Amino acid sequence: MVHLSAEEHIDELHQGLRLIQSSSAPGFSIDAVLLAHFAQVKPGDRAADLGTGSGVIALLLAAKEPTCQVEGWELMPTMADMAQRSVALNGLETRIVIRSGDLRQAAAETGKARFDLVVSNPPYYKVGAGRMNADPLRASARSEATCTLPELLDSAAALLKPLGRFCLVHRAERLAELLQAAGPRRLHCTRLRMVQPRPEQPANLLLAQFVLGGRALLRVEPPLCVYDGPDYSREMQQIYRGEGQEEKQDG
Amino acid sequence: MVHLSAEEHIDELHQGLRLIQSSSAPGFSIDAVLLAHFAQVKPGDRAADLGTGSGVIALLLAAKEPTCQVEGWELMPTMADMAQRSVALNGLETRIVIRSGDLRQAAAETGKARFDLVVSNPPYYKVGAGRMNADPLRASARSEATCTLPELLDSAAALLKPLGRFCLVHRAERLAELLQAAGPRRLHCTRLRMVQPRPEQPANLLLAQFVLGGRALLRVEPPLCVYDGPDYSREMQQIYRGEGQEEKQDG
Repeated sequence: MVHLSAEEHIDELHQGLRLIQSSSAPGFSIDAVLLAHFAQVKPGDRAADLGTGSGVIALLLAAKEPTCQVEGWELMPTMADMAQRSVALNGLETRIVIRSGDLRQAAAETGKARFDLVVSNPPYYKVGAGRMNADPLRASARSEATCTLPELLDSAAALLKPLGRFCLVHRAERLAELLQAAGPRRLHCTRLRMVQPRPEQPANLLLAQFVLGGRALLRVEPPLCVYDGPDYSREMQQIYRGEGQEEKQDG
Repeated sequence: MVHLSAEEHIDELHQGLRLIQSSSAPGFSIDAVLLAHFAQVKPGDRAADLGTGSGVIALLLAAKEPTCQVEGWELMPTMADMAQRSVALNGLETRIVIRSGDLRQAAAETGKARFDLVVSNPPYYKVGAGRMNADPLRASARSEATCTLPELLDSAAALLKPLGRFCLVHRAERLAELLQAAGPRRLHCTRLRMVQPRPEQPANLLLAQFVLGGRALLRVEPPLCVYDGPDYSREMQQIYRGEGQEEKQDG
């Protein structure tokens, strides 16, 4: 039996997954769903989700590959507690561990080079860029105050095994900065997919996969378009239904 | 009267432009046409084309904006001579200067910070990547033996005025390396457009615009698709006809 507070309710995701959401906390976004779809999870993978929030990405990864283990890091104890209860709600306690702590300390606290896959849907805005949300949960999800992009890359590189994969979603306009920061950390971009609201519009999001070390070439995939007229595009509808998973071969 | 050798013939481009091509030299490619289309030329601009080859990009830029001046640099004297004759063939001697010399020495030889716009369709392959062409003209156009990507960026940065624009076409798989090399040279990527053979295929080329200094944000434009079924796409046909020029406003 999982306890819900008065502000909480349960959302249904695809494949029977259920997620606790709270009216006083940031909800999960399309961005998280896109990242979970983009990330290639292989049998037996150990995966980490840095800044797991409600735990939606950890749950989606666990559902995508039934033999993987996922560790979710979340700075805010309230969110970590909610994520942990969602894990229990889905009976996934043996496969998903939620840790309440600072992702920047993850490798120092629990060991380096432990993961095949690291994913993150990090805060998108630099401190001082855009308005700051007065609510600390929403501010932490949105602003880099508690983790900058270089700090995130440091943590991912420290947690990954050699040739491990790091997948993230971020704002399209930060692509150059992301690639510039990744290079010195030996995170080589091997897959890039831009996300456009519509076919004729510029990208607003990016999905990127990096490999730690190695020499793989970069593949820039066709963009994902979210809308087609007033509706979600066919691909977006498939993603929400948990269909049309990315291929798992390369990486 | 412009002299043609036995190996040479004249190709017709759009807008009445005529270009000398030689069966013993690399011909102009779709890549050059895409770059000339992508680059935004403003009234009165001074533009440089680094590695101008047959001069096709210099000619297309001059035709696109009737008040701009273009300087083309070409290492190979044979190519520079052919480009110069194409300039004469079009009566553009007062607006296009072809210089036979090493683009890496351009700023040292003729002065720094002289240009509003620098464009380049550089060699795509690192020395040792892929087979080397035995023909020196084709090898120079294809291999970085005579100019690496960082050397090209050094030259562009030295030639540009503050807030001047650098536009290039390159292989898509070198995107990360390009952005990583551009950052330390204060070349900020402000426009990026991937080129895909077809809508469902990964990109094979990239078109990028950098601004020297400043703080402009990156805009990732929808990709350009070259083919639609067995034919050129509608946009590609427009580009070949010299229609549908990129907007000249931002920069």
